[in-house]
Amino acid sequence: MKALLIIDMQTGLFGKNSPRFDALNVIDRINKLSDIISLNNGKVIFIQHNGPQGDVFETNTDGWKILPELVRRKNDIVIQKTVCDSFYRTELDTILRGNKINEIIITGCATDFCVDTTIRSAVSKNYDVTVVSDAHTTSDRPHLKAEEVIQHHNWVWRDLITPSKAVKVIPFEDLIKEL
Amino acid sequence: MKALLIIDMQTGLFGKNSPRFDALNVIDRINKLSDIISLNNGKVIFIQHNGPQGDVFETNTDGWKILPELVRRKNDIVIQKTVCDSFYRTELDTILRGNKINEIIITGCATDFCVDTTIRSAVSKNYDVTVVSDAHTTSDRPHLKAEEVIQHHNWVWRDLITPSKAVKVIPFEDLIKEL
Repeated sequence: MKALLIIDMQTGLFGKNSPRFDALNVIDRINKLSDIISLNNGKVIFIQHNGPQGDVFETNTDGWKILPELVRRKNDIVIQKTVCDSFYRTELDTILRGNKINEIIITGCATDFCVDTTIRSAVSKNYDVTVVSDAHTTSDRPHLKAEEVIQHHNWVWRDLITPSKAVKVIPFEDLIKEL
Repeated sequence: MKALLIIDMQTGLFGKNSPRFDALNVIDRINKLSDIISLNNGKVIFIQHNGPQGDVFETNTDGWKILPELVRRKNDIVIQKTVCDSFYRTELDTILRGNKINEIIITGCATDFCVDTTIRSAVSKNYDVTVVSDAHTTSDRPHLKAEEVIQHHNWVWRDLITPSKAVKVIPFEDLIKEL
């Protein structure tokens, strides 16, 4: 059984002051994936970050809300987190095990922070991890363009030394042929 | 109490075919740090990767050996691992807790693989993490020079959203003034 993880796709992270690379296409790909996963009886799980007071995604503020452009369904799950690692003191692991999910498909924001940390954490918890190489995003950094950051992390994840299966890093168009 | 982690500084990773950025200086800084940590009753912990048959660091081959340039002491600890995450099915966590170590200082190779994964894993285990910004190394990647990879990961670690203290990323010369 599969789960689609949609990490931190929240209003506060997609404001005018933090443009994200290829955001509209990333959102569109996530919507298409969540449709397919739902139709195939997989679980769609939104991970929602809760920042401290004054933060762009402070709990219960507008910035904390999941992007309105993302399609939501009655059976989707929403998990609250407070650090980069989506497994840290959340019910994510329990929900995945409870639903007999061993393969997680990862999308979201930001590539180099919560997406990367969650991938590495999932690997250490023995999940089979698939990353959609063009359905996660980040911003330009002082030292690298967003596209270079995405390219680097996609490259690293593919070569991580993992307990069993390698992390699969695959573009949206190729992945949907397999689902 | 502090521990110095020296990750995967093994012969097979420093061969002619895998030059590592600033390797001699990285080794020199690690030796100086391990001296200071030992003198201050901290623990020096070598993490040794065990690759599968045919790998550059296959267990018990020359490539698996810890670099002979690194100073070793009778009381140093050596921990065997098999994946990027130094905590995965190893006794690292037990040894740290048993020695009442809550702060770990991280050095080693490779920046983007085992060093990064171990840092993120340590953060999720509530350790206070210090990374010596010029005592970890990697190789040129197809898409980025080794120096750019190091710069990027140093930048990311500093800004990770962590359970308590931020990850401290500090150059060797500044760190030794504090030890």
